[in-house]
Amino acid sequence: MTKVSRRGLLLGGAVGAGAAAAGIAAGRSLVDGPEPPPEPVTVEAFHGPRQAGIATEPQAHGVFCALDLREGTDRDATARLMRLLSDDAARLTRGTAALADTEPELATSPARLTVTFGFGPGLYAAAGLASPVAALPGFAVDRLEARWSGGDLLVQICGDDALTVAHAQRMLVKDARAFASVRWTQRGFRAASGTKGTQRNILGQLDGTGNPAAGTSAFDTAVWRPDGSTTLVVRRIRAELDDWAAVDRTVREMSVGRRLDTGAPLTGLAEHDEPDFAARDELGIPVIHPSSHVRLARVGADDKRILRRPYNYDEGPSAEGKPDTGLIFASYQADVERQFTPIQRALSDADLLNKWVTPIGSAVFAVPPGCGEGGWVGEGVLG
Amino acid sequence: MTKVSRRGLLLGGAVGAGAAAAGIAAGRSLVDGPEPPPEPVTVEAFHGPRQAGIATEPQAHGVFCALDLREGTDRDATARLMRLLSDDAARLTRGTAALADTEPELATSPARLTVTFGFGPGLYAAAGLASPVAALPGFAVDRLEARWSGGDLLVQICGDDALTVAHAQRMLVKDARAFASVRWTQRGFRAASGTKGTQRNILGQLDGTGNPAAGTSAFDTAVWRPDGSTTLVVRRIRAELDDWAAVDRTVREMSVGRRLDTGAPLTGLAEHDEPDFAARDELGIPVIHPSSHVRLARVGADDKRILRRPYNYDEGPSAEGKPDTGLIFASYQADVERQFTPIQRALSDADLLNKWVTPIGSAVFAVPPGCGEGGWVGEGVLG
Repeated sequence: MTKVSRRGLLLGGAVGAGAAAAGIAAGRSLVDGPEPPPEPVTVEAFHGPRQAGIATEPQAHGVFCALDLREGTDRDATARLMRLLSDDAARLTRGTAALADTEPELATSPARLTVTFGFGPGLYAAAGLASPVAALPGFAVDRLEARWSGGDLLVQICGDDALTVAHAQRMLVKDARAFASVRWTQRGFRAASGTKGTQRNILGQLDGTGNPAAGTSAFDTAVWRPDGSTTLVVRRIRAELDDWAAVDRTVREMSVGRRLDTGAPLTGLAEHDEPDFAARDELGIPVIHPSSHVRLARVGADDKRILRRPYNYDEGPSAEGKPDTGLIFASYQADVERQFTPIQRALSDADLLNKWVTPIGSAVFAVPPGCGEGGWVGEGVLG
Repeated sequence: MTKVSRRGLLLGGAVGAGAAAAGIAAGRSLVDGPEPPPEPVTVEAFHGPRQAGIATEPQAHGVFCALDLREGTDRDATARLMRLLSDDAARLTRGTAALADTEPELATSPARLTVTFGFGPGLYAAAGLASPVAALPGFAVDRLEARWSGGDLLVQICGDDALTVAHAQRMLVKDARAFASVRWTQRGFRAASGTKGTQRNILGQLDGTGNPAAGTSAFDTAVWRPDGSTTLVVRRIRAELDDWAAVDRTVREMSVGRRLDTGAPLTGLAEHDEPDFAARDELGIPVIHPSSHVRLARVGADDKRILRRPYNYDEGPSAEGKPDTGLIFASYQADVERQFTPIQRALSDADLLNKWVTPIGSAVFAVPPGCGEGGWVGEGVLG
């Protein structure tokens, strides 16, 4: 993450050419007219061996948009689409307008915007290629709805400014229209930018404590393949909040295996204390229930762990005041079958929390490596 | 707006009692257990002669929730409802849990949370009182949908943290359920907290330049009645973005009467330069078109002006990629008929911008004065 001034962006530097192009696109001379006041422009690099938006410290807003390729969008056409979208993403994430941007002023505050692309099984099929990912097996807890499931191409757009995210979504969808229709869009939020520590989800739980820490070898082992690729699972998990509200904190904490206030395991004092699954109380009963969420979700080896990067959703209450809210669960892992599926199977079979959460959407994507300047995401797959 | 540390909140100060109650409600002792790290808690005062959320510098997120009183909710019952909601709002806005809060941890980061109440004509009717506000007259541009219009009680919830706003909405709707059903909910966003200056709307325009400046007598004249009350108009205005994208910047700027990049009037250089409606070009044609938005929306006298406090909405694209986005227009003014209606009539009759914006929802509310500690909003109306 780099912070550069707006003036620096306009007058030169690594991204100066793009910024100048945007200035011209905006019908604004760089030398006359009122200069916008210098202000920090916070940029997450788009180019690199791995895509951004994965190891990136999660931003406050996230949109997940799944597209279906139109009939006849073959390998070459998909490559053209990815060239176009990669160019848009490279420009927008550095705070410059997309090439055919109709509202260039909405692009000038990137606020840590990232755009991440994932390829579903249907994209590989359309390109005549073998897919490295497949839809998940069914789980007993699933109540999946087609309108939240599947998709050929996933565009994950994250940023700290909702207006910037909305604009980026519009530009990317506009440029994809000729090649693809929109299958579903899910829009979510996390605690505001600048909030320290693990975020809470809509159930009030700290969510993400078990993640491998960024910058560690555990993280790299869990998330990345040697070529810089990974995989993404997106699941829409409805929270049965009215039922959750009806149970007391003891039941909630037993179900999660952690204290709700601090996030500490029931055997510990602080959020990141290691849970002691062997600990028993004076009656010989395990302090952490064997069917608690923390017990079932916990795996030992780094190559079995996943990186959870979820967003909350809230579509507003029904006429009777019933909430329509929950989690856009998003996890990154090097291998879905080795990492995600065993955890999900264990949770599906026994998790006490299942009573209050219901998966209603599911999709799996291969996430290609990043690309260099002038390159495009997917060039190693489709090029 | 005050900034106090979390520790300060827990250990004393003006709001210490409430915070202590929340700590206990959260099952957390104040003297043992891991102390959360001190962090800034940014509080907008709920109590005062005028309600918060009006003169308050607009927060990044806003939810407008319109409730309809249930059959039989009379004056006394409505008073009980307002006591309850005022108590919730007082607690939540200072970062403490609501009395019956089921997820107290989601209340601890107020992030400038404000809750503002408005009374629609139906509330007065149910209470057997004459209403100081009435539904707007019809305008030629209107394409109003019942699902975005009307309402007996408006709850406006704004804050810089979307999770806090979602939690506050849930608590308020939950406590209102016995008295009222949800008529509509509109959720919007502005440029991220910390962004300087006038925000842009989804059309890319700077939006709000013409507002009276906070802290001036012009502001007070436009917004407040002597008793601290005001009125609120909420209109959902769909942006026809695909059509807007098809016209060039010259047409856009002619329609608005301002430059899109700087927001300067076409006769000026900077955003806040006064438009010169008499100026003509070398051919004798007015530089600012007489049917431009800026010309028609401009009124001279302070007691004719309005305070616009809008949010953008974006419900995501259709399958064919068509955006469903626009503006939750919200304006405050001392008197709807004297201030809002003439401006809207002028715009409806001639505004060049009408081609690209369509009002699809409309509601009007009287906004009672604020209340002191222990009081409740509406006590002067219903008490």
